Amino acid sequence: MADTLHTPTEDLHAVLERMGTQARAASAALAKAGPDTRTRAIGAMADALIAAESDVLAANAEDLAGGKEKGLSAAMLDRLALDSDRVASIAEALRAVAELADPVGTEIARWTVPSGLDIARVRTPLGVIGIIYEARPNVTADAAALCIRSGNAAILRAGSESLQSSIAIANALRAGLASVGLPEDAVQLVQTKDRAAVGHMLTGLNGNIDVIVPRGGKSLVARVQAEARVPVIGHLEGLCHTYVDAGADPQKAIDIVVNAKMRRTGICGATETLLIDEAIAADLLPAIAAALTDAGCTLKGDDTAQALVTNVQPASEEDWRTEYLDTIISVRVVDGVEGAMAHIETYGTSHTECIITEDQETAERFLAEVDSGIVIHNASTQFADGGQFGMGAEIGIATGRIHARGPVGAEQLTIFKYQVRGTGQTRP
Amino acid sequence: MADTLHTPTEDLHAVLERMGTQARAASAALAKAGPDTRTRAIGAMADALIAAESDVLAANAEDLAGGKEKGLSAAMLDRLALDSDRVASIAEALRAVAELADPVGTEIARWTVPSGLDIARVRTPLGVIGIIYEARPNVTADAAALCIRSGNAAILRAGSESLQSSIAIANALRAGLASVGLPEDAVQLVQTKDRAAVGHMLTGLNGNIDVIVPRGGKSLVARVQAEARVPVIGHLEGLCHTYVDAGADPQKAIDIVVNAKMRRTGICGATETLLIDEAIAADLLPAIAAALTDAGCTLKGDDTAQALVTNVQPASEEDWRTEYLDTIISVRVVDGVEGAMAHIETYGTSHTECIITEDQETAERFLAEVDSGIVIHNASTQFADGGQFGMGAEIGIATGRIHARGPVGAEQLTIFKYQVRGTGQTRP
Repeated sequence: MADTLHTPTEDLHAVLERMGTQARAASAALAKAGPDTRTRAIGAMADALIAAESDVLAANAEDLAGGKEKGLSAAMLDRLALDSDRVASIAEALRAVAELADPVGTEIARWTVPSGLDIARVRTPLGVIGIIYEARPNVTADAAALCIRSGNAAILRAGSESLQSSIAIANALRAGLASVGLPEDAVQLVQTKDRAAVGHMLTGLNGNIDVIVPRGGKSLVARVQAEARVPVIGHLEGLCHTYVDAGADPQKAIDIVVNAKMRRTGICGATETLLIDEAIAADLLPAIAAALTDAGCTLKGDDTAQALVTNVQPASEEDWRTEYLDTIISVRVVDGVEGAMAHIETYGTSHTECIITEDQETAERFLAEVDSGIVIHNASTQFADGGQFGMGAEIGIATGRIHARGPVGAEQLTIFKYQVRGTGQTRP
Repeated sequence: MADTLHTPTEDLHAVLERMGTQARAASAALAKAGPDTRTRAIGAMADALIAAESDVLAANAEDLAGGKEKGLSAAMLDRLALDSDRVASIAEALRAVAELADPVGTEIARWTVPSGLDIARVRTPLGVIGIIYEARPNVTADAAALCIRSGNAAILRAGSESLQSSIAIANALRAGLASVGLPEDAVQLVQTKDRAAVGHMLTGLNGNIDVIVPRGGKSLVARVQAEARVPVIGHLEGLCHTYVDAGADPQKAIDIVVNAKMRRTGICGATETLLIDEAIAADLLPAIAAALTDAGCTLKGDDTAQALVTNVQPASEEDWRTEYLDTIISVRVVDGVEGAMAHIETYGTSHTECIITEDQETAERFLAEVDSGIVIHNASTQFADGGQFGMGAEIGIATGRIHARGPVGAEQLTIFKYQVRGTGQTRP
């Protein structure tokens, strides 16, 4: 990877512009390579990663030493740390992506028009994807593999605390690409801790980055969304709601709410606000609250919730807007499905919302009218995940309004073109 | 429409922000209205336009008088001018959009995963679409109808020379919406000639414009692409190529090239550059050139083309980059399909390219590898049009790399969400 390392005398913007040019050239080769070559490439990336284990662990030890010096929390150090098992599981994740269906060139639709033209809409790669993420070494491999699977070149910007690990992993991935005859510049990693590199990427590098995918906390994503001059696919927040309707089965409601909140509190599909129909709140909220409390959850609620359940702290306006990512839930008693949908429209982030009810008509109305990427009936919001959707690996969940919403997997990293087959037609 | 008219004392940005808020509210109502209501709305818009004919023609007379004073060309004045027949044909175009299939709520895909969840991907509107266009009164109606068909609210910014006509048309469309109980703010027109209004729209109006569609000349589109803080769907240029391969049927080549260049020279799908295989150039280029010359076309060419055909002017580097939109074509002799694809990769604008050949293998390679929104085998590039693709009306051709490429019709003005139907599933 020496050719993308820059010396202190080279201007950072020039380095990134060169990476953009290299990525564009590599993306054309990658798109033409065909699905079997891309599959072999991802397998070779996994092999090369295993072969580079000692380099990767040595680099990771440097990152960990730097992280301890910097005073990173135990949780952050744990996310950063690699060992032989973790390297093996990163390689396994690569092999799983190699087994995903290759979307490039697949026909989405085909029809014939009265002029006799045969029109086919087929998937093509997006081109070059810029991925900006935090200090999680596995993302380097996961994101690169998903880009290769979809025929896209990747420019990766890893969190600075994981830079050495990410460089070592990227070097291995590039060696894997080269081993099957693909350009190693299909995967490039920005090799500096200088945060100005992010700003350069957000300019689109002279049109050589087609889309930016931010993965990380709110401040990173907010910066990307505010500054990017190219399209951004991702999400800022997952402030997910679960609404328990008067028609809910009580046991399903308890099970789903506890799972939606507490299974893993730190993921974007975790429920943050429980909405409950006033018609059933007195009967059902105490049992749901008890189950949440037993599971270790703190409750904040509106006046009615506080009146119905002891130990509910008052919820402020700010609480309805807070993605806790913690063992806290806000609870609001609402006037039926209308009240629930109005609350979601005001406070939701278009990520994932759930209704629990046995009333099919109400459920279908909620599914039709709630304007979020994922709307769920009678199941936990924690299913908001590409793998759980049967889509394989994902690069994140999109909450924007163009290109894709919901889990962003290999298929969502493509666009399409029209292939038109004629027999000499001219237009009258 | 008095409520969106602003007085000189009201700040322009505040007016536009209010329009954004109104559009967002209207879009929610429109999305929920259902396909039949949207169909009736577009029909009512057509009826209201016919009923408002005298107002529209009076307003148009004002625009024409202003345009003459301003010294607009005869061609521009003709595009601006309305009469009873033209109003009737605008209404007819609305009725054609009313007959298009309504995309909202249609299922794109549906599957069940091992957890038993039933997952459906269904189309939803984009939300609010900002359309910025030049002085063509019919676009006000066409664009608004396509937005309503796809469940989107529209904020329209018409070219200043057509402002009075556009206001009169928009008023009629709003009356039509109101007559079927839909919010008239689903169609709003910016009622000022102040160009600063465009800049305000490009900010996205506090997140209340989801996508901008520019329709017009290169300077307008370039400004929009450079300044927009929200996604842009459209195209800057249609520098389309037709490549005549050694395997071409000579008569097809002559017919298609003449049609692709000369049928209408001012549209984005017109061919601007002819590429011809050196293996057949001596045999075929003179005949193609003669047919083009007979049709009134001026030829510019590389050295080989000049040597093969008399009256070919020299083509400069600039010519390969020029969308003439006129009776001029640039001609380059290339080294087979590889040379043609290399030229297109360097000079193309990802709009529409064509190969003429009877060699199926070469044709399929061109269709697979050329990275443009539309790639055509053995038919004129002038077919690059939503109507010709059987997609009905279109708001333009997209050449960007995300969301949609090729003709942008009602379906392309939608996005999707996932409806997940469970039976009480919690995630292990």
